[in-house]
Amino acid sequence: MTDDALLESLKQLVEPGKVLTDKDSLENYGKDWTRIYAPNPLAIVFPKSIEEVQAIVRWANQHKIGLVPSGGRTGLSGAAVANNQEVVVAFDYMNKILDFNAIDREVVCQPGLVTKQLQTFAEEQGLYYPVDFASSGSSQIGGNIGTNAGGIKVIRYGMTRNWVAGLKVVTGKGDLLDLNKGLIKNATGYDFRNLFIGAEGTLGFVVEATIKLERKPSNLTVLVLGTPDFDSIMPVLHAFQNKLDLTAFEFFSDKCLAKILDRGDIPAPFDNRYPFYALIEFEAITENMKDEAMAVFEHCVEQGWVLDGVISQSEQQLQNLWRLREDISETIAPFTPYKNDLSVTVSKVPAFLADIDNIVKADYPDFDVLWYGHIGDGNLHLNILKPANLDKEDFFAKCAVVNTKVFEVVEKYNGSVSAEHGVGLVKRDYLEYSRSATEIDYMRAVKTVFDPNNIMNPGKIFK
Amino acid sequence: MTDDALLESLKQLVEPGKVLTDKDSLENYGKDWTRIYAPNPLAIVFPKSIEEVQAIVRWANQHKIGLVPSGGRTGLSGAAVANNQEVVVAFDYMNKILDFNAIDREVVCQPGLVTKQLQTFAEEQGLYYPVDFASSGSSQIGGNIGTNAGGIKVIRYGMTRNWVAGLKVVTGKGDLLDLNKGLIKNATGYDFRNLFIGAEGTLGFVVEATIKLERKPSNLTVLVLGTPDFDSIMPVLHAFQNKLDLTAFEFFSDKCLAKILDRGDIPAPFDNRYPFYALIEFEAITENMKDEAMAVFEHCVEQGWVLDGVISQSEQQLQNLWRLREDISETIAPFTPYKNDLSVTVSKVPAFLADIDNIVKADYPDFDVLWYGHIGDGNLHLNILKPANLDKEDFFAKCAVVNTKVFEVVEKYNGSVSAEHGVGLVKRDYLEYSRSATEIDYMRAVKTVFDPNNIMNPGKIFK
Repeated sequence: MTDDALLESLKQLVEPGKVLTDKDSLENYGKDWTRIYAPNPLAIVFPKSIEEVQAIVRWANQHKIGLVPSGGRTGLSGAAVANNQEVVVAFDYMNKILDFNAIDREVVCQPGLVTKQLQTFAEEQGLYYPVDFASSGSSQIGGNIGTNAGGIKVIRYGMTRNWVAGLKVVTGKGDLLDLNKGLIKNATGYDFRNLFIGAEGTLGFVVEATIKLERKPSNLTVLVLGTPDFDSIMPVLHAFQNKLDLTAFEFFSDKCLAKILDRGDIPAPFDNRYPFYALIEFEAITENMKDEAMAVFEHCVEQGWVLDGVISQSEQQLQNLWRLREDISETIAPFTPYKNDLSVTVSKVPAFLADIDNIVKADYPDFDVLWYGHIGDGNLHLNILKPANLDKEDFFAKCAVVNTKVFEVVEKYNGSVSAEHGVGLVKRDYLEYSRSATEIDYMRAVKTVFDPNNIMNPGKIFK
Repeated sequence: MTDDALLESLKQLVEPGKVLTDKDSLENYGKDWTRIYAPNPLAIVFPKSIEEVQAIVRWANQHKIGLVPSGGRTGLSGAAVANNQEVVVAFDYMNKILDFNAIDREVVCQPGLVTKQLQTFAEEQGLYYPVDFASSGSSQIGGNIGTNAGGIKVIRYGMTRNWVAGLKVVTGKGDLLDLNKGLIKNATGYDFRNLFIGAEGTLGFVVEATIKLERKPSNLTVLVLGTPDFDSIMPVLHAFQNKLDLTAFEFFSDKCLAKILDRGDIPAPFDNRYPFYALIEFEAITENMKDEAMAVFEHCVEQGWVLDGVISQSEQQLQNLWRLREDISETIAPFTPYKNDLSVTVSKVPAFLADIDNIVKADYPDFDVLWYGHIGDGNLHLNILKPANLDKEDFFAKCAVVNTKVFEVVEKYNGSVSAEHGVGLVKRDYLEYSRSATEIDYMRAVKTVFDPNNIMNPGKIFK
């Protein structure tokens, strides 16, 4: 069948105008935030119902066409890249909140709902959707589920996985599965809901989700602390964690802060500068807890772990302090960062970070290395900035060499080559540093169960 | 090969004396708490290492012998029953705590560790293992994981699933998989850890687990409230949930209380009796929160939802109040209860319970129906007691007829035929009321990936 005939048959499955093949659309919908791969989809299709998604999947099986799911395309692993004549299935028109139950605190939504909209909806109900991260303004719930998105509140609230009470998926065979149906307790065999969460669309597509909401935290309070070195960050974490239920514990290096302050629109946390900073957030439910936090702060100063600090006194100041950490990713984007999103268990973080730092410093002393991340979860974002005098290809080639060394360290520490960004294309060749060859074989076999013709996001996670 | 030769070859794989075939052992290790099925195992084997488990699985594949995992055998679904000449793999000698990391708050243990011992170990570290239920004194961690055990603290802490940071399993092919390695964030492909949790040993056996521990709750406080009817229970739940983070919200009917008080060793909560009771637990972190609870209580009294109440003033009183709820299962055991463990979303509970009550009352007016359960999770335990004048076979036969009607209601309300007890043998024939035929087909296919010869707990969950 010619491409034209193929596309004609695809157009029959959706509403008029809901298959796009213009250059701009192909370019736009064929890539995510990685910008490493040249987009090359065959077409973009916009289903408006579960039945249309099923029809598209059956069509793809019939014609052996790969399908790539597309949400907000804010991913950093290339999981939403279509660079091999796939058809992109974009959920932009399946973006509604379908139901809400105040007693169950559960909201039923379509996969194209933007994360921020869910957060806002929750607030309007006096509730809270706690999964939050820098790209919440454009990422979509379906993509969050596909990558089991994490972010800045994981230490208290866990990953996206924890908030999915029900999931409707269309498998690679075109079957609609209604998984867990919003239940809290359900011990009826294999938990396919959790299997689809984080599967990056390789087993099937999320077409509806039941999301749990939570009590809105009261009087969130942020401290930003300056520390003399990285090794002081961890005892600070433990000191605070022993006394308070933290909602966030983040860190960033002074190199990150320098980039943030260069913007000119975010105030410095305090007058002096320090090698590293911790950002701590907790619910000050009572005045008592604020006092408790201040006592821990003073203890940390006495121990020499903390040299300076500020505590938020208003919502505005809290927002400004958060921007010091939250805006790093966006701020360094123009410097063509080579990103790695690594994790180890929390206790191993100091030794792990020192090992990686040594590797990069030894082999690439001219590279600017920026560390920040969700240290309370053992999750470190390693960003290597491209030196101005190096071209992009050379830079990425050098980084690829560093990568292997970095991942050997990850493997040594029993860590993860992708803490929260997923595997996609970017980490595919490095998956064996975190998952055994045997595990990957089982993954392939499980994929075959749900997607025997390998049409669902083919080539992502593994070849 | 004769049975004798088979057993001889099995004995070569483990330490001397670690294969038992005496009548008492076969009887004891061949059954769980269901007591419905006649135990009939071929032998009981006690591995002492992961390597021995792998050898046993390879042996079973070679000889096409079914293996049944055995923990504390406190299950209520028959998942640990060996009634078909299987070899029972008992983890009694793999019962140690192997490692503990205070910074990560993670403990590494073997599957045979008794739940209570893990709870005690956590307390000794100033921490808390929050999965708790009536059989915690004899159930084992491996069994908890196999059934994704729930219990009395789910409303705050979730199921066993939430506390498993890492899992080593031996698959039905004899492969050892090291899943998630204790990481908080790990986005590297399919989450097999969650697939094995709740799989009831049908995909493989848990041979090691990394369990997260939690901050110990401070000053737990219990209220027991008497209500005029079941419909008052739900607004009481919502009133308290809106003001406090509850650690438990349980309920029981007066028929349950009557059985408890008949024991003579547990004090009544208050002088009068009421149709239903709610048990509410929360952390009274500040004096403030206790005042808040009292204010909600008074509001509930004003609304007519609550007629009487008591709040714990000491640890001893808290324990006594908990026994009113926790000891029901053990107390009614001599009455040969026919148990059902159902769940729906919380908002559907009142209508669901009324429907089921009507069915049982209409068809079996002489049956004594006892309701209790984890109402805050939408989880209801329906217990039908055997009338003294009916023999056991007749009684179970009549209950099986009720079952079908009950499960039709479960299906109508999109509920679960097994909230936390698992499927095993007891719910196997009713699985389609909660999971579609298509889903069950996918389950079978996934089992084939991990256990191609169907030797791992064969016949459990599905035929």
